[in-house]
Amino acid sequence: MLIYTEQELKQYVPLNLEAISIVEEGFSKLAKKEVEMPPIMRVDVHDQNGEVDVKTAYVKGKDMFAIKVSSGFFNNYKLGLPSGNGLMMLISTQTGIPQSLLLDNGYLTEVRTAAAGAIAAKYLSRENIATVGVIGAGSQARFQVRALKLIRDFKKILVYARSTDRAKKYAEDMAAEIGIEVQVMDNAEQVVRNSDLIITTTPSKEPIIKAEWLHPGLHITAMGSDAEHKQELEAEVLVRADKLVCDTKAQCSRLGELHHALDSGVLTKESSIIELGQLTLKELRGRENDGEITVCDLTGTGVQDTAIALFAYNEMAKRNLGIKVENKTLSLKN
Amino acid sequence: MLIYTEQELKQYVPLNLEAISIVEEGFSKLAKKEVEMPPIMRVDVHDQNGEVDVKTAYVKGKDMFAIKVSSGFFNNYKLGLPSGNGLMMLISTQTGIPQSLLLDNGYLTEVRTAAAGAIAAKYLSRENIATVGVIGAGSQARFQVRALKLIRDFKKILVYARSTDRAKKYAEDMAAEIGIEVQVMDNAEQVVRNSDLIITTTPSKEPIIKAEWLHPGLHITAMGSDAEHKQELEAEVLVRADKLVCDTKAQCSRLGELHHALDSGVLTKESSIIELGQLTLKELRGRENDGEITVCDLTGTGVQDTAIALFAYNEMAKRNLGIKVENKTLSLKN
Repeated sequence: MLIYTEQELKQYVPLNLEAISIVEEGFSKLAKKEVEMPPIMRVDVHDQNGEVDVKTAYVKGKDMFAIKVSSGFFNNYKLGLPSGNGLMMLISTQTGIPQSLLLDNGYLTEVRTAAAGAIAAKYLSRENIATVGVIGAGSQARFQVRALKLIRDFKKILVYARSTDRAKKYAEDMAAEIGIEVQVMDNAEQVVRNSDLIITTTPSKEPIIKAEWLHPGLHITAMGSDAEHKQELEAEVLVRADKLVCDTKAQCSRLGELHHALDSGVLTKESSIIELGQLTLKELRGRENDGEITVCDLTGTGVQDTAIALFAYNEMAKRNLGIKVENKTLSLKN
Repeated sequence: MLIYTEQELKQYVPLNLEAISIVEEGFSKLAKKEVEMPPIMRVDVHDQNGEVDVKTAYVKGKDMFAIKVSSGFFNNYKLGLPSGNGLMMLISTQTGIPQSLLLDNGYLTEVRTAAAGAIAAKYLSRENIATVGVIGAGSQARFQVRALKLIRDFKKILVYARSTDRAKKYAEDMAAEIGIEVQVMDNAEQVVRNSDLIITTTPSKEPIIKAEWLHPGLHITAMGSDAEHKQELEAEVLVRADKLVCDTKAQCSRLGELHHALDSGVLTKESSIIELGQLTLKELRGRENDGEITVCDLTGTGVQDTAIALFAYNEMAKRNLGIKVENKTLSLKN
């Protein structure tokens, strides 16, 4: 068994075009029904304001598949610790024997989540965009912009976050990192009205974005909601979209923005809803003109985890990295 | 993060009365509703005749909880490998940060499964039994008998398995290990008719035990079925039981013997079904006289995994064992 640490993974597994293309391949296989992906397992640790999710997907033809454990403990900031944590393991699809542990503390989840955002933008946003609006100022707000920059050239970022201090810090950091202007806005409305593409990255329980702010040509990627009680977009936003795309319909119906639109009855299961893999597979068309409004609802899927874990493993293995723990069962047990 | 290997775990984490009592405490907490236990996650790897289950349970008041990954790949014997495999991880209930990996290759699952069998026998079998019947001759057939020996004194084992060679090997091994007579029988009927307590330990897809073989005073623990398609007992066996006990009603209704009895309509959700935790908690009574027929349906629960993983961790930690991998996230990530 090979064990890789966060430090090594951060050093050798970049968020680059290859990572994005590997996640894209995962979505295509999902749409081709070459993936076995059970529903997310979730444990709530209410008394600590914590939750742990387990995601997995077996992609036919691959040597290994990932099981990912990710936690969100929202009192961790009091201890000076990040809320998100976790690890991935890779299991042989031939023998079921665990082959590798990726002790990434959530890093690979950041990468594969941002990759999905970039894929959404590739198929759904206008080719030429000037201004990107970001709601939220945490870690994914940074990763999403890094990934998007690989897919679209833009000149300016507008950011809004509940904490102005965090928004200011975000603006400073990202301006320095990406080398473009990053402006802190007073509210979400200003961001939406003045951007060509919006990324929402919050754990909000109340909608932040109103339908009345939408304008022709806008694309929105909402990646914050991954649980029943989370919501970033007014349900009406989904109705107003000319194209509504989900990472998977099944998950978004339970955990994503779509869930609230179905619950309130403004959309039904018969509404036209596209899956991201139908776009990457070119089975359906994404944006067809500069006037369309497009929305992508991302809840985060096990197939992304298997894709990124295999990518990471290959990057590490070819450099002979990792800690080796000998733990083989050499014979039939009795 | 502390990592323990199978060798160390086998050496220092015995199947003893303490292990059994810790698993028993887990069932009691489950009955007291002090456990958060989501449904089992399952991935099928059909083309390799393989399956991977993920089980977990958060027990209130404990420092850590386990997530267990266990695989069954039934072509592994062709490679000279055991079919069962897997590992457990322990996660902090305060921060969600993974604390320990138990690379047990399924050993702790053997222990906690056998412990549940012993608990069932403690509450449901007669005090004085002479003969134990075992169906199946694999690893659990051994562990179940080892655990039972800690709870009940018996003089003789009758064993039946589809492979006579494996049954003979079992008889030799267990006679040497336990120091009592172990007799190979020609069929399951002979075993059932001549035993006071039966343990079924097979992955059978067809019922092996018929209701007409039951006799007053018999106790049966069926631990083989943990999936929709598995069945060891004729549905009528459950109807004939004076007391029918499940590890959890919810799981047995989906994956256990109970599932087939409900499916065929011989039992309904209104039938009198006891949960094991109601017995350990003394909320309900187990065996009340020497004439009752009792049946316990075990599918294997996440709370057993958390119980045994914590037991194992404590045994290892007090000896300062394990491989330490430094992988701390020291500050808030951005």
